[in-house]
Order: sequence, then structure tokens, then C-alpha cells
Amino acid sequence: MENNQSLSALVDKVMQQSAAAFHQYRQVSSARRAEFLLNIREQILALGDELINTAAAETNLTTARLINERGRTLLQLQQMAEMLQKNDWQEVILHLPPKENPGAHPDIRRMLFPLGPVVVFGSSNFPFAYSTAGGDTASALAAGCSVVVKAHPAHLKTSCLVAAAIQQAAIQSQMPPHVFQHVEEGSFEAGKLLVQHPQTAAVGFTGSFSGGKALWDYAATRPSPIPVFAEMGSINPVLIFPDYLRTQYEKLAELYAGSITLGVGQFCTNPGLLIAMEGEGLETFIDLLSQKLAATAPATMLHKGIGESYNKKSSNILLINGIKQVTSTKNAIENHQANAILARVTANVFLQQPGLREEVFGPFSLLVICSNPSEMMAVLSSVQGQLTVSMMATEEDWNSHARFLQAAIPVAGRIICNGVPTGVEVCEAMVHGGPFPASTDSRFTAVGIQSVKRWLRPVAFQNFPQDWLPEALKTKDENSSA
Amino acid sequence: MENNQSLSALVDKVMQQSAAAFHQYRQVSSARRAEFLLNIREQILALGDELINTAAAETNLTTARLINERGRTLLQLQQMAEMLQKNDWQEVILHLPPKENPGAHPDIRRMLFPLGPVVVFGSSNFPFAYSTAGGDTASALAAGCSVVVKAHPAHLKTSCLVAAAIQQAAIQSQMPPHVFQHVEEGSFEAGKLLVQHPQTAAVGFTGSFSGGKALWDYAATRPSPIPVFAEMGSINPVLIFPDYLRTQYEKLAELYAGSITLGVGQFCTNPGLLIAMEGEGLETFIDLLSQKLAATAPATMLHKGIGESYNKKSSNILLINGIKQVTSTKNAIENHQANAILARVTANVFLQQPGLREEVFGPFSLLVICSNPSEMMAVLSSVQGQLTVSMMATEEDWNSHARFLQAAIPVAGRIICNGVPTGVEVCEAMVHGGPFPASTDSRFTAVGIQSVKRWLRPVAFQNFPQDWLPEALKTKDENSSA
Repeated sequence: MENNQSLSALVDKVMQQSAAAFHQYRQVSSARRAEFLLNIREQILALGDELINTAAAETNLTTARLINERGRTLLQLQQMAEMLQKNDWQEVILHLPPKENPGAHPDIRRMLFPLGPVVVFGSSNFPFAYSTAGGDTASALAAGCSVVVKAHPAHLKTSCLVAAAIQQAAIQSQMPPHVFQHVEEGSFEAGKLLVQHPQTAAVGFTGSFSGGKALWDYAATRPSPIPVFAEMGSINPVLIFPDYLRTQYEKLAELYAGSITLGVGQFCTNPGLLIAMEGEGLETFIDLLSQKLAATAPATMLHKGIGESYNKKSSNILLINGIKQVTSTKNAIENHQANAILARVTANVFLQQPGLREEVFGPFSLLVICSNPSEMMAVLSSVQGQLTVSMMATEEDWNSHARFLQAAIPVAGRIICNGVPTGVEVCEAMVHGGPFPASTDSRFTAVGIQSVKRWLRPVAFQNFPQDWLPEALKTKDENSSA
Repeated sequence: MENNQSLSALVDKVMQQSAAAFHQYRQVSSARRAEFLLNIREQILALGDELINTAAAETNLTTARLINERGRTLLQLQQMAEMLQKNDWQEVILHLPPKENPGAHPDIRRMLFPLGPVVVFGSSNFPFAYSTAGGDTASALAAGCSVVVKAHPAHLKTSCLVAAAIQQAAIQSQMPPHVFQHVEEGSFEAGKLLVQHPQTAAVGFTGSFSGGKALWDYAATRPSPIPVFAEMGSINPVLIFPDYLRTQYEKLAELYAGSITLGVGQFCTNPGLLIAMEGEGLETFIDLLSQKLAATAPATMLHKGIGESYNKKSSNILLINGIKQVTSTKNAIENHQANAILARVTANVFLQQPGLREEVFGPFSLLVICSNPSEMMAVLSSVQGQLTVSMMATEEDWNSHARFLQAAIPVAGRIICNGVPTGVEVCEAMVHGGPFPASTDSRFTAVGIQSVKRWLRPVAFQNFPQDWLPEALKTKDENSSA
């Protein structure tokens, strides 16, 4: 009781401070917000090896991977800063009456404004790019929102280092106090209280379905509901068409062995479902893929809980009638290491077992074998919303199966041709999100500068004199209307 | 039980048909969707006086008002058609690798696609413009969504006429069967089942807070939550600054007597809260406004339920300690007529009574009298999310009180200078929506072509050969990448 009261008081203090900061920060110019983001970038770089080593110790990720992820994080901050500097991101729309007839209709001018304080929950698998100074924080700060990050308990020290860098940048850029705050309290209850606090205006989350859905539920049942953008992972179906399989099974095995085991399979874009048709090349492909997966050394997962969950979920699937494990089971894995696992099943069994459509977070992939294109279509139609669908097809396949692209559109946020779903390009055209349960709001992306739209809303100004309007809404020509 | 079963079967049939229609309709070109919308326009016009007379009999609205509203409805359809014809509404973003180095990064191209079947709940106060063929239907059909309209029981005959016109247009334009469906079943249960049906992808609603919030709750607690855009009304605060009051009290009384009584006050943009400071002109303004309101003849409201609710809610407010009725009470109102009512209260009392911040749907307005600018700011900060805030200010007022504009931005979707909130211009720059409870998602507008964004989500295509891509994503230059 006493603990709950002090936690509640802590959250209230943090959110009141965030609200006060918001009302100052929302009036800070785009140019100055850009400086702030670039300053965060510099401060993170200045942490040097200490940051990489701390994250490596906390997450078991390799330093090469972490250096790469840091680069991605810095790129995200830079792209948001460049968006702010271009100053065309606020969706200004002017509806001006003709000069010769100023009374013809009202003068209406609209642009986007920030929603309010945003609470960010980082992910376990991206300690930089989707955590403390990751995409959610960068986009919310760019939008003009104050940010409260709840540190991920699996990499608390890393989070504290990054938070200190952001706070240092805020001081250097003379931003309002508390524009960014870091809550180290790791409990589930703290997250709930942050989402439920009346001053919280929106939530960003990257992680598991159960975590994201719980936050969604808290937000939706508030007296005043708020938007939650939760990116909750996916099984990322891969459609393998017959001619591609027949002619490129070797390349296919190579590509997908790499994609399934990349980062010990700990990516929300991990290809967890391969869908192929019986035919020439299939068994050879399975043998090759299986060999390549077996040749991959077992690797340590992010933390004990994730390792245990991987072993439990994959074991449960292998117990289902009709599922055959293709890779040989390896024993004697230490700590929380994971072996890559490939299993196979007929489309018929797959369609009868909804549990097979759920994500196994880790280097696990299930190959569904269809006897004809209609079965393949039935399998694709049976899966829930996905971050990605991939299509492995030759020109010949395309001539017979182009309709699968139309069928994939309602399922996914991104559709990949002859490639792997892992590796998310950070660019304006990227869509990282998708129909539920891939994300809680498919109308937005979590990656790329368009992700700023999650934290913005339009406001229209009617018949204001030019001088009274926000700067972005003033027309250059002083002789124009109003 | 039997009734519930048959209702459930009806809703299931309708939504399965809508889903089947969606998968055809989403592939219909923008140009053909535009033709369809223009055809709906023609078919509605062809209903002629029968439509106006039917609506007048069902709603007690004047024919002049209804003819005007029909014009607005046709304009909305036309603007959506023009948007489709321009073909730049799908937010195409291309991320193409340089020709000299096609492997530099993936080729990513994104555009917007429709969400799926949309269920529309029309309003009682706009039998045309926010009902069967209103803004929600027009924007959802433009987006490529199939539409199911639940007829408003208060104007069922009108809704059936308009639905038949849409269906006629669908046949003439050779649209997929069931692209538009009309559910005449008026029960609350039918609405609930429609929102909860697994095939429903999104919901549009215009009406009361209790109705919109109930639908939001049904949608948010589905196994797979869906977006609900509910526009739920507002009290539309009007800030009256001292110099404006002193110099223009007569014009102010004239403007606001008209706005408060327009359409018997049955607009979501009705000015229900006037906020002024003590000072020269105030009492004269109150007298003038009161006289003008008293001179307005009592008028019949949309239906009995609305009339009763108006009398009950306004009477309850007048019983609160510290509230003074300014207009004289008129008795002997017949049927469900309403008298315009103006009441006054001090800021001090207002701030202590949260019930005074709730909407009284009808020609009721509460004048809050503040003793200084800080009280005025406290009153503005105390109100919930609003569709509009209006500011009545002279240059002199602006010099002292410009900060009220910054304070109004987080509160409202539209901010009006020296005018009235009633009258919503149908244009691209319009924002009709606002922070909760004005609407359930302030990131979108219900009016203007931007309203189409409610029903769309982005999809990215990675490394597809040019020929395999949707038409809108192909680059003109055939020698470019991909």
C-alpha cells in the first residue's frame, strides 16, 4: 500500500512536470527542436565504447550489431532533425478567399500541432533504436511533445546512460526543464499508472503482444481515451512460388537461413512462417535450409525470460499432431541459448490449428506445405495482421500468381519481393506497422519520418488577421487576403 | 432470444457481404470511384422535393435549411470525387536507389490503401450531410471501403430514400454488389453487433457523447480493436475580451443571438459557453442578447427525446446554486418546442461545478463572468476537448491577451477569430474534430477531403519490379530504377 502510494506520487510528479514542459516545448520553433535532436545525437556518440559495452553486457548482443544499431539510432535522430529543418512537415493547408472578393468564404488555415506528453516503452531487442532515444522518442520530440521514457528493466544501465545523454542535450540546447524524463522504476504497475495518468496524451510501445495489448486496454478504458501506438511483432509469412523454388532453392535456403538466425531470431520481422507448394525443389530446399540452420551455433538470447519463453513455445508447437521438426534437436544448450528450429506441417493441419499462427520470438520457422494455389491462398488469408509479407517469385510465377499480391495488401504493412523481411530501411517511404495485432493502429508507421504523424493533430484557424497567426500559417505575400 | 439470434444472423450476413464487396471495390480505380460518387450526387438530386418534404416531416427542420443541407451533402460528394480525379490523394512516397548504384539501398514505395468495411452511424441533426450519404459515407467510399449505414431511427424514411439513391448509383456505375448497404433495424443492439462484427474494420459516428462513447467501448474491447471516429459535440467556448465588449457589444449580441438559436441550437458547434470579463459593456451586452433571445419564437426540436432532454438538462443547470437565468422563462411550450435560454454564473462558481462543462444540446448558453484575465485563463483551461474555441478581440485586446490563442490550441480543433462557431466550411483546410470528448481521435477531421485519411493506411512495397506494382507506384520514366 505504501509502495503503491509512493509509486503513484512519483508518476503524478513526473507527468505534471511533463505537462508543464509540454506547454513550453510546443512553442519552441522547429529549428530549435532540430538543434536539440542533433545535440542528442552528439551526446550519444560522446558516450563512446562505454555505451556499447554496457549494452553488450546487458543484452548479449554482439558489439558489431550494437554499433550498427547505434548508427541507426543516430540516423533516425538526424532524419527527424532534417524534417524539422525543411519546415514542410506540419501539413499546412490554406483556404483563402479570392483577393477581389474577401467575403466569398472564410479564411481557413490549418496545420499540425503536438498532442501532449508522450509515454514511451522501449523494447528488449533494440536497446538503442527502439528504446530510450529510439524512434518513438525522436518522433515525439520532433512533433513538439514532451517525453517520458519508462526504462526497460532488461537494459536499465544502457537506458540510464542514454537518458543522461538526452538530458545533457536538453540543457545545452536550453530546452524547457523536464522535456524528457526517465522513469527507472521497472514494475508493471508503474507502466499502468503512466498510461492511466490524466496528463498522458499518447503512448508508444515496442514489444510483445501481451505487453502492448495490456497498455492498449489501459488507455482505451481511461475516462478520456488516448492513442496508443504499439508495435507488437508478427510471424511475417513468406510465400514461395513453384518456379522460384525449382530454379533458386539454393539461394532461397541461403537467404532464409541468414534471416531466421539473424540476431538469434530476435526481430519482429523474423520470418516465422514459410509457405510453399509441393513440387520440384521443395525437399532439396528443406534439406539445405535445415543443414544451414543446424550449422549455426546456438546463441545466447537477450535474457533468461526470453530464452525460456522460446524453448517453451517452440517445444509446445513441436508437440502438436502433424508437426514435424526438420532440424535435429541439439541438447546441452547453456544459459539461455537458443538453437535454430525448422518445422514442417501440411496446410490442412495448419488451417486447423490457430495456435500455429502465433509468434515464437526467436530463431524458429514453420514451413507450411500446400498442395495447390488455393490452399496457399487459404493459408495467407488465415493469418492475422502482419508487419510484412514476402513473395519469392519469378516472372513465370508472377504470370500465374499475381493475385497473391492483392491478397497480401490487406494483411501487411510492407510487402517484399524476392528478399527477406529482416532489415528495416529507415526512410520516408518505410511502413513499419500493420493491421492488428502487428500494431494497434495500422494507419501509422513506427519507422521513418512519417512516424511523427502519430503524435500530431490538425488545428484550423478561421478569419485570423495575418499578424496574429502562428508563423507557419502566414502567407508570404502581404497583399493577399486577411 | 429468437430475436437476438435473427438480428445476429442479419448483421453477420450484411458484414460478410460487405467484406466480399470490399475485396472487389478496393481494386476499383480512383476514376471509377469518382464516377460512382458523382452518380450518387445525381441520384440524390433526382429525388427532388420528395426528399426535402420527407426529411422536413421527420425532423421538423425547415425546408430552406434542408435544401441548404442537401447542397452541402452534394458538395461533399463532389469534392471527394474531385480529390479522386486528381489522383494525388494516396500519399505516394518513393525511395528509389540511384540509377548508377541500384544496390545502394532497397527500392521502397508506399501509398495508402483502404482499411476494410466501414460502419456509419448518422446523426439526428443532419439528416443529409452527416447521415446516409454524408461525410462519413462519402469519404469511406472514396477511400475504397465498402460501407454499411445504420439508419437513424429519427429519420428512417429519409435514410431509406437516400440509401435507395446510393444503391441505384452503384448499379448504374457497375460497382460490386453490396458496396453500400443500409440496415434499417433501429435497435441499440444492432449497432453493437455491427461494431463488434469481426469483418468491421472501422466506424464513423456523429451524435451524442453517450452514443459515441458506447461504440468506442465496443470497438476497443473487441478481440481485434478497430478505429472509431466519433464526433460527439462540444460546448464551444467563446472568449470575449474587454475592448471588444466595450466597443462592439451590440454586434456581439446580434451575432451570438443568431448563432445560439440557429437550427434551434441543434448544432454540435452551438456556442454553449460565453466567457467574458467584468467591465464596460458587459451588462448592456447581457441585456441586448437576452432581449434578442427572448424575441426568438420557441421552435420545435428534432424529436421528442431531444426536446425532453433539452428541458431536463437546462432545468437542472438552472437549479445549481449561483446560476442565474437571464432570459425570462416562457411557459406553455407545445410538443417538443424549445425556448432559447441564457444563464450567467461567476467564474468562481463555474470552476467548482464540473457539470457546467457538459453540453446542453439546444439553444442554451451559459455566460461565465470573470473578474480578471487569470480567471478567464482558468476557465478556458478547465474545459475538456472542444470542436471550436472563438475569440472576440480587437487589436488592443490582442496586445494584452495574445497568449489566449496559445492556450486555445490544445483545447480545440478549430479556433475562430471575431465570428461564430456555427457554420462549418466544407474545404480541405477545415478541421471538424478535436481532443476528447469532442471526438474520439483528434488526429483526424470529419469534414473536408482530409477526412478520407480516417479510413486509409499505408503499405510499403520493397524491391518489386516496376510492372508488378500497383499503377500509382510506377514511375513514369521507364529507365529509372527497379
